[in-house]
Amino acid sequence: MAIVVPRGFRLAGVACGIKRDKTREDFTLIHCPGGAAAGGVYTRNLVFAAPVAYDRARTPSADIRVVAVNSGNANACTGERGHRDAATMAFMAANSCGAGADQALVMSTGIIGEFLPMEKIAAGAKLAATRLGDDEAAFMSAVRGIMTTDQYPKFASRELVIGGRAIRLAGMCKGAGMIGPNMATMLGVVMTDAALTAEQAQAALTAAVQQSFNCIAVEGHMSTNDTVLLLASGAAAPEPLAGADLAAFQEALDALCIELARQIPNDGEGSEHLITIEVVGCRDREGARQIAKTVAESALVKTAIHGADPNWGRIVSAAGYAGVPFDPARVGLRVNGFELYRDGAPVAFDAAEVSQSIRANRDTRLELSFAEGAASCRFWTSDLGHEYIRVNADYHT
Amino acid sequence: MAIVVPRGFRLAGVACGIKRDKTREDFTLIHCPGGAAAGGVYTRNLVFAAPVAYDRARTPSADIRVVAVNSGNANACTGERGHRDAATMAFMAANSCGAGADQALVMSTGIIGEFLPMEKIAAGAKLAATRLGDDEAAFMSAVRGIMTTDQYPKFASRELVIGGRAIRLAGMCKGAGMIGPNMATMLGVVMTDAALTAEQAQAALTAAVQQSFNCIAVEGHMSTNDTVLLLASGAAAPEPLAGADLAAFQEALDALCIELARQIPNDGEGSEHLITIEVVGCRDREGARQIAKTVAESALVKTAIHGADPNWGRIVSAAGYAGVPFDPARVGLRVNGFELYRDGAPVAFDAAEVSQSIRANRDTRLELSFAEGAASCRFWTSDLGHEYIRVNADYHT
Repeated sequence: MAIVVPRGFRLAGVACGIKRDKTREDFTLIHCPGGAAAGGVYTRNLVFAAPVAYDRARTPSADIRVVAVNSGNANACTGERGHRDAATMAFMAANSCGAGADQALVMSTGIIGEFLPMEKIAAGAKLAATRLGDDEAAFMSAVRGIMTTDQYPKFASRELVIGGRAIRLAGMCKGAGMIGPNMATMLGVVMTDAALTAEQAQAALTAAVQQSFNCIAVEGHMSTNDTVLLLASGAAAPEPLAGADLAAFQEALDALCIELARQIPNDGEGSEHLITIEVVGCRDREGARQIAKTVAESALVKTAIHGADPNWGRIVSAAGYAGVPFDPARVGLRVNGFELYRDGAPVAFDAAEVSQSIRANRDTRLELSFAEGAASCRFWTSDLGHEYIRVNADYHT
Repeated sequence: MAIVVPRGFRLAGVACGIKRDKTREDFTLIHCPGGAAAGGVYTRNLVFAAPVAYDRARTPSADIRVVAVNSGNANACTGERGHRDAATMAFMAANSCGAGADQALVMSTGIIGEFLPMEKIAAGAKLAATRLGDDEAAFMSAVRGIMTTDQYPKFASRELVIGGRAIRLAGMCKGAGMIGPNMATMLGVVMTDAALTAEQAQAALTAAVQQSFNCIAVEGHMSTNDTVLLLASGAAAPEPLAGADLAAFQEALDALCIELARQIPNDGEGSEHLITIEVVGCRDREGARQIAKTVAESALVKTAIHGADPNWGRIVSAAGYAGVPFDPARVGLRVNGFELYRDGAPVAFDAAEVSQSIRANRDTRLELSFAEGAASCRFWTSDLGHEYIRVNADYHT
């Protein structure tokens, strides 16, 4: 799949020696010379990293020109010095592109509790500024620069016509589901050449994240550094989108974010299934999401799928302790299309056939239905196998 | 340790063929010929089993004479017929002891979604009634009758003097932490020969469960059948306890319930550590409990302890997403007494020494301190290793 880099952006990923493997990219620079409207969505963990504090104070913004990301060190739990280092990193990155420090955002991911190696950051910013490009190779180097325990690079892009103009969106993210010896910090950045105001950028991203990055379970452990940014350069059309055009853009952004977010639980050695949990018939969307999330985070559900076991009891009872009221006598469940449970009771089904269907497909689909209303939610998670234990118990800080 | 069976109770556990292994006890009968005040605490899962509905409607009660428990079948997700079967089981058990059906409570644990084998239940009730005894052997057979995936029987008893009289308490429970292919349903029953009113029995049990059975993490998956009962025969002294005597009884009941509850996360093949999480300095107890529970249920924390890794980042960040407000700059952490984190930042410590301390001890102690207030909570969980995956992924319904 060819990448279409949105107009107005140049990117580069370089190796500056933060990661142990000195050949791997660990510094990514995104430059938008004409300035971009930017929105951000951040971890809700009370223990948040310095770059999160830095960006949160600066978004939404009408004029962001630089985003700098380092991998290998999260600059988290680093106190006052961490905040100064994040600001210095923003300054260095802005400076390398001739932008102002207040026009830069920063993201970090990697080991926590250690100070950023600022000489390496300085070298990375300088080197990356000389490598900026807008082609696929440049884009892919930038994707590699934000990866940590990811097994493969995660990205998506698309081009569509809105209001008679070709609009591009491209995004990258990192994070691995149910694996990754650190906390599987989730970082994402989406670029577009559509024009948005700062407030539109923030609203569009918040809405898109609600049904994508907020609907995946990475072992339920919210990281100190989770960040998703949206940058809109307006290079395709200078007038901010409105009305039906804005709605069309939102739809494309939603789809792109879902395409990106799904790649996270799909990652991870030892995970054999990407599990899609579809919850329908709830009173409101938040209730549907809470039920889906509770099922997605149940170790008993995840291990059952790993073992190709159509264990409806674990799934239905996980829904029951989600804290969302429903009538248990109206619950239904399908696994990969097979009906296992209807009106609050198990139905006769061929367990061997359902088990074979789970075993034969990487995608597993759980559909839980309620009779409370019309709200629904789609959620993604992975199964839970030996590899998770091996990596997470055997890794040492 | 000798068991002291409270006066006024007789017990028996027998094999009636519900479990696959026909030699194992699977039916337990507790008889209190003079009647007991009874309280009950039940699962808050919306998908609850028929015996839970049955007992919940009948407690608190001033006159319970029979408790019947079967293992091997949970009578859960069994619809209307399940409710009729629970009532029939209560009738059969009461009848075998010459009590009225409204004087019996029932508990079930085991496979869900299958109907109770009522002929076996009938045979079990009849046989158990002929075996009732008040000695240690009778007590232990009753304990075995409620076990499912438990690796060992769980029980505790004590005798103390309250108001000049010797008062006995004895209890048993079942359930296994982070293991057990079903949902590790937790059942418990505590007997005493102290005298309590029905309301006192309910209040005393509710208070004791708050800091014991509600402070253990069994993979966070709340079962359809979780039940704890308290029966007070008054055979030691007919007058209901009051004032300082009641307070002394509550203290003893609290300690007994903690001794019982701790045995649950301590169980389980492959679990190498009983982890005690002590949270101090919170605004209120519920906040402290919520933080402790979030840490206890983090797969990343559990795998770190399994790997003897003093990974303070996983522990502190789990506290951060518990949904309880606190000042991250005032957080402290000790593991097995070693200080790892102070005032929101890691401190220098000898990682090899802490790791060795975790490896060398079955008990692991995590102390998280905050500066929000004076409330605290103690919580227990187990580590997470390969055996959990093996049992829970390879088990089939």
